[in-house]
Amino acid sequence: MDNSLRINPDRLERSIQELAVFGLNEHGGLDRTAFTPAELEAREWLKAALTSEGFSVRIDAAANIWGRRAGENLELLPPIVCGSHMDTVPNGGKYDGALGVLMALEVLRTLDDAGIATRHPFELVSFSAEEPNPFGLSTFGSRAAAGKLTREQIIRVKNPEGKLLTEALEEAGGSPECFEQAALSKEALSAFVEVHIEQGRRLISRNIPIGAVTSITGIYREEVTVRGEANHAGTTLMEDRNDALTAAAEMILAAESICRAFPDREVVGTVGQLKIIPNAPNIIPAEAVFLVEFRGESKEQIGQVLTEWNLRLELLARRRPSVVTRKVILDQAPSPMDRTIIEAIERQAGLLHIPYQRLGSMAGHDAAHLASITRSGMIFVPSVGGKSHCPEEESRISDIEQAANVLLHTLLDLDAGLDTGGRQL
Amino acid sequence: MDNSLRINPDRLERSIQELAVFGLNEHGGLDRTAFTPAELEAREWLKAALTSEGFSVRIDAAANIWGRRAGENLELLPPIVCGSHMDTVPNGGKYDGALGVLMALEVLRTLDDAGIATRHPFELVSFSAEEPNPFGLSTFGSRAAAGKLTREQIIRVKNPEGKLLTEALEEAGGSPECFEQAALSKEALSAFVEVHIEQGRRLISRNIPIGAVTSITGIYREEVTVRGEANHAGTTLMEDRNDALTAAAEMILAAESICRAFPDREVVGTVGQLKIIPNAPNIIPAEAVFLVEFRGESKEQIGQVLTEWNLRLELLARRRPSVVTRKVILDQAPSPMDRTIIEAIERQAGLLHIPYQRLGSMAGHDAAHLASITRSGMIFVPSVGGKSHCPEEESRISDIEQAANVLLHTLLDLDAGLDTGGRQL
Repeated sequence: MDNSLRINPDRLERSIQELAVFGLNEHGGLDRTAFTPAELEAREWLKAALTSEGFSVRIDAAANIWGRRAGENLELLPPIVCGSHMDTVPNGGKYDGALGVLMALEVLRTLDDAGIATRHPFELVSFSAEEPNPFGLSTFGSRAAAGKLTREQIIRVKNPEGKLLTEALEEAGGSPECFEQAALSKEALSAFVEVHIEQGRRLISRNIPIGAVTSITGIYREEVTVRGEANHAGTTLMEDRNDALTAAAEMILAAESICRAFPDREVVGTVGQLKIIPNAPNIIPAEAVFLVEFRGESKEQIGQVLTEWNLRLELLARRRPSVVTRKVILDQAPSPMDRTIIEAIERQAGLLHIPYQRLGSMAGHDAAHLASITRSGMIFVPSVGGKSHCPEEESRISDIEQAANVLLHTLLDLDAGLDTGGRQL
Repeated sequence: MDNSLRINPDRLERSIQELAVFGLNEHGGLDRTAFTPAELEAREWLKAALTSEGFSVRIDAAANIWGRRAGENLELLPPIVCGSHMDTVPNGGKYDGALGVLMALEVLRTLDDAGIATRHPFELVSFSAEEPNPFGLSTFGSRAAAGKLTREQIIRVKNPEGKLLTEALEEAGGSPECFEQAALSKEALSAFVEVHIEQGRRLISRNIPIGAVTSITGIYREEVTVRGEANHAGTTLMEDRNDALTAAAEMILAAESICRAFPDREVVGTVGQLKIIPNAPNIIPAEAVFLVEFRGESKEQIGQVLTEWNLRLELLARRRPSVVTRKVILDQAPSPMDRTIIEAIERQAGLLHIPYQRLGSMAGHDAAHLASITRSGMIFVPSVGGKSHCPEEESRISDIEQAANVLLHTLLDLDAGLDTGGRQL
């Protein structure tokens, strides 16, 4: 295989800047939540970019955008797919999601420029509504593609202004009536590769431009309700109290210390949401309700964390009179990435003399859902300062260029190696 | 002095039940917030009860109700005053405040029945708006009497419905125009004694019917703002975090442990109010704002607590990256009660063979404000289960009877002993 092929970094950077005008606000951030006018404009831009260069464009029932570069006609193989999403969080940045879509576009363009024929069709995908959005359905498009969303689940969903999701979906070119046609069978794809910014500091702190993602984090979330007893903050002696907040504070610190002490750095625990009742300065809190979440690369890690968490809560219950009730509200298993893809990424980075490392993704991604229907892999690009979901979100063009070249050759590697029916090419 | 005089427990109990109809709700609690129709009805009941027995009634500019039984005409001495308040918290009980007013009424009636002449005039007072109320001014009447409220401070105050405090005050018989005439000079009173339910468990747990209050708690309250850094709850490693909530949790537990470890039981610390920002399950809290309050019987106790609190916050600042800002929002010094009154209570309880103990008041009371203008004292009556500010609030009639007899003889003791110009009577 010709190892000298390179993407065009200027063209890629230009497309990043072009896409970044849609939703730009006065803080320099992007307001491009799914199905908003700005996001619909971004969709039009992408479709125009694809069709103007002769790639065929298809919008599926979930309004995911697919752009296709045909493969050789000799073999009728399912496509190798590459992409991510274009929607942003409110006041988000121009790399989260968009970079993965634009890198796929750059790969298609580079292959066309060089007149390279691939065995598999190569497809770009831009999934709908990956980020949290007012319809309350994140990773909407990839869940639909993986067959994890039914028409029933979406048909009555409204945003806080009362607009139906089905209406928004139609405006974006989707089809609520035939919604389940967005679901792909296992035979419909050969592989999926997503490039994304890391959103952490592991790569940038070691100056490594390529992360070969081994697994996408599992997320366990539970709602904990601590019931104590409201009482006068003056006349109730310390020994007579049943303070729901101090009990909750111990649990919050327990969640932190369990994860801090964990031998593996890639385990995190967070209490991000907390409410106390009655929340008056001179009344001992009667109730504290909080959400705790734990993330880890493997089921075993999360299992170990939960064992310790259960133990700490039990010990605490012996020391404090408050009554604790717990409700699991999310228990998403980790998604291991495909070994063939991980190895292809490492092999091609090695051949291109670009430093790389394996790492887990501690954020959820579209690739986690695709992993249930096809070989899936991810390449992480360093985030300056580890920042994301903010106007300061940035990836250096030098890193982006190296990642795009690794992506190009990884896809060509997969094109050569997959679906050979036992043949070694 | 005739030690055989006794109050009439049946009449006292009857008056407790009569007053308890005003504001009675379907939970069996009282909704008798200051200046509501129910509270105005209670005022009319009290005025009628006083005038029907020949006591003169005066309503001052702060709508405090004063009932007077004249003293001997030989000496023109300032009155010995006794009372409390009749307003309640929402869904409150029938003893908090009311008991002190009705016990004063029972003392006046008992003296009249027995035809006892006193050197000092004896006055009953029912102070306006002692409890927290929608106008945001608790201990309103006693603050006005102590000259701690100016016309300027009340003139524009409204409740959340937009009603002016001045209007409510006029409806209750007060006079916003001459508001500062409610302030009493130091020469206007000889002494003030307030009977109140304990609102704690110290008396009831030891089965002691009389508490001789030594001091009314000081209250120190500060608003603490902890600034961390909002970040992705997945991609931010534990070691890279600046979590405002876990830092706040340590402080909340520090406040608790400082007070728990305090050698004196009458020191308490509470975090009753807490808010976190942005309060989303998958974002590390950027900010936590909470109110902490400490109460203690003496300035020295509160000072020691604050020394320890400052130290703990300093140590914490070395271990955690969050930035802490603190704002003192209340620093009310403890009000020591008058030694002459404490000793009179103890002497008379002793003579009546009624168990008593000294104790501090951990709640604020009208007597704290009166203490700045006259000798002030308080008698506590046991609260069943330590409960208050709820429909279950209760004091046993047997305890009430004993307290009322101690009050009667304490007031006669003071009448005999005060203002003797050096004479020992």
